[in-house]
Amino acid sequence: MATAQRMVVIGGNAAGMSAASQARRLKRPGELEIIALERGGYTSYSACGIPYWVGGDVTAADDLIAWTPEEHRERGIDLRLHTEVTELDPDGCRVRVLGGGDGGGPGKWLGYDHLVLATGARPLRPGLPGIEAPGVHGVQTMDDGRSLLETLEETESARTRRRAVVVGAGYIGVEMAEALVRRGYRVTVLDRAEEPMTTLDPDMGRLVREAMAGMGIETVTEAAVTAVRTGEDGRVRAVATEDAEYEADLVVLGLGVRPETGLAREAGLPLGESGGLLTDLAMRVRGRENIWAGGDCVEVLDLVSGLDRHIALGTHANKHGQVIGTNIGGGYATFPGVVGTAVSKVCDLEIARTGLLESQARAAGLRFVTVTIESTSRAGYYPGAAPMRVKMLAEHRTGRLLGVQIVGREGAGKRVDVAAVALSASMTVEQMTFLDLGYAPPFSPLWDPVLVAARKATAAVRRAGAH
Amino acid sequence: MATAQRMVVIGGNAAGMSAASQARRLKRPGELEIIALERGGYTSYSACGIPYWVGGDVTAADDLIAWTPEEHRERGIDLRLHTEVTELDPDGCRVRVLGGGDGGGPGKWLGYDHLVLATGARPLRPGLPGIEAPGVHGVQTMDDGRSLLETLEETESARTRRRAVVVGAGYIGVEMAEALVRRGYRVTVLDRAEEPMTTLDPDMGRLVREAMAGMGIETVTEAAVTAVRTGEDGRVRAVATEDAEYEADLVVLGLGVRPETGLAREAGLPLGESGGLLTDLAMRVRGRENIWAGGDCVEVLDLVSGLDRHIALGTHANKHGQVIGTNIGGGYATFPGVVGTAVSKVCDLEIARTGLLESQARAAGLRFVTVTIESTSRAGYYPGAAPMRVKMLAEHRTGRLLGVQIVGREGAGKRVDVAAVALSASMTVEQMTFLDLGYAPPFSPLWDPVLVAARKATAAVRRAGAH
Repeated sequence: MATAQRMVVIGGNAAGMSAASQARRLKRPGELEIIALERGGYTSYSACGIPYWVGGDVTAADDLIAWTPEEHRERGIDLRLHTEVTELDPDGCRVRVLGGGDGGGPGKWLGYDHLVLATGARPLRPGLPGIEAPGVHGVQTMDDGRSLLETLEETESARTRRRAVVVGAGYIGVEMAEALVRRGYRVTVLDRAEEPMTTLDPDMGRLVREAMAGMGIETVTEAAVTAVRTGEDGRVRAVATEDAEYEADLVVLGLGVRPETGLAREAGLPLGESGGLLTDLAMRVRGRENIWAGGDCVEVLDLVSGLDRHIALGTHANKHGQVIGTNIGGGYATFPGVVGTAVSKVCDLEIARTGLLESQARAAGLRFVTVTIESTSRAGYYPGAAPMRVKMLAEHRTGRLLGVQIVGREGAGKRVDVAAVALSASMTVEQMTFLDLGYAPPFSPLWDPVLVAARKATAAVRRAGAH
Repeated sequence: MATAQRMVVIGGNAAGMSAASQARRLKRPGELEIIALERGGYTSYSACGIPYWVGGDVTAADDLIAWTPEEHRERGIDLRLHTEVTELDPDGCRVRVLGGGDGGGPGKWLGYDHLVLATGARPLRPGLPGIEAPGVHGVQTMDDGRSLLETLEETESARTRRRAVVVGAGYIGVEMAEALVRRGYRVTVLDRAEEPMTTLDPDMGRLVREAMAGMGIETVTEAAVTAVRTGEDGRVRAVATEDAEYEADLVVLGLGVRPETGLAREAGLPLGESGGLLTDLAMRVRGRENIWAGGDCVEVLDLVSGLDRHIALGTHANKHGQVIGTNIGGGYATFPGVVGTAVSKVCDLEIARTGLLESQARAAGLRFVTVTIESTSRAGYYPGAAPMRVKMLAEHRTGRLLGVQIVGREGAGKRVDVAAVALSASMTVEQMTFLDLGYAPPFSPLWDPVLVAARKATAAVRRAGAH
């Protein structure tokens, strides 16, 4: 009987543990030994859920954990927590591992037949004075969430003014702004850009800013943070920008993330512009037979632009893991790429996008038309019909759909999925015009808002084509 | 200067008036005279909204009217209400018209350059004893709605037991059941079929029956109505089936509709199996140069089965009108066909389908696999995450998606749109598995329920393919 092969996974969250679990489903322990190494103390948790835990929508941290370490172990995965990998040796097919109990030193070599890199991303943390002060929090990991909740409790029990500053008005930033408003904080969101939500074009981001103002959230744009000011107790007291100072009992950083690929870089593995690992469609690191990578540490193929992009999102990470686990387990799977779909909410405002923004389309060398329409989530006469704005980009001449952005209330966000599928199918906006979408007064106007946009975009492509 | 051409439209609702309006946008009155003939007194109203008007969600009848007769006239459409067409003469390019003021007689001939048949559908009304008694109502037209509301007011003021029987458990039937429950009636729904909602497979229809029971709506299936019983006052008193009798102060008929194509039949125009007019992709009646047809009186191409089907739905009617008006107006448009999407709700239960049912797939000669999965509308840990069931059909060997049915609560119904687009694009269930759908905890689990179904269907196709 052949000895078991060994699969080593670095990173115990979505991508890594999905890969491990899927491989375990396909191969028995006698065929494949699976070792998963996790630096922290948690596995398979929903990082995307942390803002809702902080906001009180989710009451127990455990609810965010899909699979505990014990559950993984029971399924035959040798999971090692508080275990750091300090070096990759791709040619020697081994990694150097520093266990929690090992003390210092460089760690011990661990050989592998298959290596899975699922090292995730690290939050951007600018090197500003005061940025490490107590009261300044990231919201990337379970430990971040727990630490922020502790600060919230302290601040609340101290009955201070309870002001919070959120630095960065992306998804995490606006979700955290909502969470803190719900906790009774006065919240100011600072962002460098012209409008919040730079995952939208500025004309759509403006709607988000206006809606946030209506919720009592102040958004200061074109604000470059220069320092975090601390009080005599050493705790955060304010956030300074080039122009002003904003009082804060609490600062949350939501500045986005970068791929965590330091080890991969040192080992000479191929990285893209963002620093994310480059893989083939089977999620194998390019040029490497037995090294796989997935989740927030890789770049993925953007099907609309044809370029590789870094998109940190749990749903992609999970799919990557599924593909990797299937392939290591002896099956066959590929990850076809993404179209850049994202959906979020701040209070009852729903924000969604898929495909390319104007700036991204230009950067990809595309010429395009844009249209924006106003419609409602339900038939206009039906109770609860809420306004929504849909912006659509279509390629010049061909009329191929390039992107959709939606800002609206209940029922707006998930409408972006229609465009996401149309992008995957390379549909033209004219083909979209007559899509057979679900219609009934409680669900949609007679023409679904996405179809209204497609119809208008079709006309714009025709007009532009005449020139 | 050339004389204006004349466009005659028969039917003043969605398809007819969309055609008229779109042609008017493209041609000035001096180029194209547009005469629209409507038998009743209303134009461009939402028949789909009538249940919500009856239920009280929509308070004013006017809210259901998108464009009034006056508005159409102001836009240069010669709209004639209470005007019936009694004969078509396709070879003579003329129709015989009986105006409201004309008294009896066969009417006067009116010539046309373009004729648009938008005669709609008529509700099925079985020839049962008592079916014409006061208290028995259809819900097809504005007059039906008004008449039903009058009966409701009488019944309510009379403070009788307030029991209602709905005959037919399709979309209209279940929507009316909800409307009547909201009005405080005890409601019994009778249907011939094994389960309600025969637009779903019986295993999914069962979920609807169970949910309706939970809302206090009794559904009696396999019930063949034999008579409507009347009291001494001549009004409805009960509905009799082969097995039982159900007391009723009010009876609503929701038995579906048939294309209203008597005139077209007499004139020898081509009709399909359902009695609906057959058109080409430009919505021109097959074999006729200058006769167009759209809306509830036509059959449409079902893109999944390749067969013509009759589907009465305002959203299709509107699109047909748009295509017809564009073509008559000198532009170019085609209606590509439908995939059979429908969405509805009864109280907070959402019901959706697209593509083919098992029975339809079999009738189309297709071999297929089916899978059913349970998931939730949001991340499981997020408040308001509601269960939903998704059933998926995929073609044997090719894995092409054939149909999806969804029954769930808030956020379930419109998810069917993803499958509708995938059907239009002839996607396989494997291609669907990695679709980049919007993910965030308030909007979806990590794997959207549609993707979970696609993943399971992919596995089922593979297993079946091995045999």
